Amino acid sequence: MDPDAVSKAFVEHYYTTFDTNRGNLANLYQESSMLTFEGEKIQGSQNIVAKLAGLPFQQCKHNITTVDCQPSGPVGGMLVFVSGNLTLAGEQHSLKFSQMFHLMPTPQGSFFVLNDIFRLNYA
Amino acid sequence: MDPDAVSKAFVEHYYTTFDTNRGNLANLYQESSMLTFEGEKIQGSQNIVAKLAGLPFQQCKHNITTVDCQPSGPVGGMLVFVSGNLTLAGEQHSLKFSQMFHLMPTPQGSFFVLNDIFRLNYA
Repeated sequence: MDPDAVSKAFVEHYYTTFDTNRGNLANLYQESSMLTFEGEKIQGSQNIVAKLAGLPFQQCKHNITTVDCQPSGPVGGMLVFVSGNLTLAGEQHSLKFSQMFHLMPTPQGSFFVLNDIFRLNYA
Repeated sequence: MDPDAVSKAFVEHYYTTFDTNRGNLANLYQESSMLTFEGEKIQGSQNIVAKLAGLPFQQCKHNITTVDCQPSGPVGGMLVFVSGNLTLAGEQHSLKFSQMFHLMPTPQGSFFVLNDIFRLNYA
C-alpha cells in the first residue's frame, strides 16, 4: 500500500461525494468518529452527516491545492492534511479551507474517518 | 486532564520556543517523529530541528488564530490543529499557515510530537 496513493484516492472520493451528495458520506464515519467543524465538536456518523447535510448551502465545489499524509502511529492509521478552496453555488469568491483526517483501518481492509477537523482560513 | 487546556499549553509552548530559539524544539520530537514541511518529509528529532533551524530567516513571530483538538484514538494521543499568521523579520505582510500535530504520551506523563504537518496557505 502506497500511503500517498491511498490518501489521494480518499481525498478525491471524499470531496467528490461531498460535492454531489453529502448524505453518502455517512459510511466513511463510525460511531466513534469525531468532527470539529469551525470549532463545533460533533460525534458519531449520524450526527456528523446531519451537520454536513444541514450546512446552509445546496451546492458547493471543493478544489484541492495540497494533500499531505503520514502514518499515524502504532495502530496502522493514516493522517491526511488537505488545503484547498471551497466555492458555494451562486458565490463568485471561493473560501480557503484546511482540513485534516485521521483514517483508521477497518477489518474489511478499508479505512474510516476517526477524526475530522475543518477550518475556513479567513483572509 | 482537559485536552483543550493541554493543547493550548502545547501550542503556546511550541510557538514561543519556535520564535525565540528553534533549536530548543528538539526535545519535543523523538526518533520516530515525522515532519512534513511544505511537502518535504523529514524524520527524526535531529533532522527535524536541523530543517527548522535552517529555514532562511532569523526571526519570526507566529500569531495563532484557532486551535482545535481531538483525542486521536486507542493509544492515548491527541490531535492538535492550528491556524494562524507567520510574520518574518523585516517583512510587512504576514503569511497564513495551517499546521497539525499528533501528540503521543510519554512514560513521564508528558507528550511528544509524533506527526507534524505544516503548510503555508497562499492567497
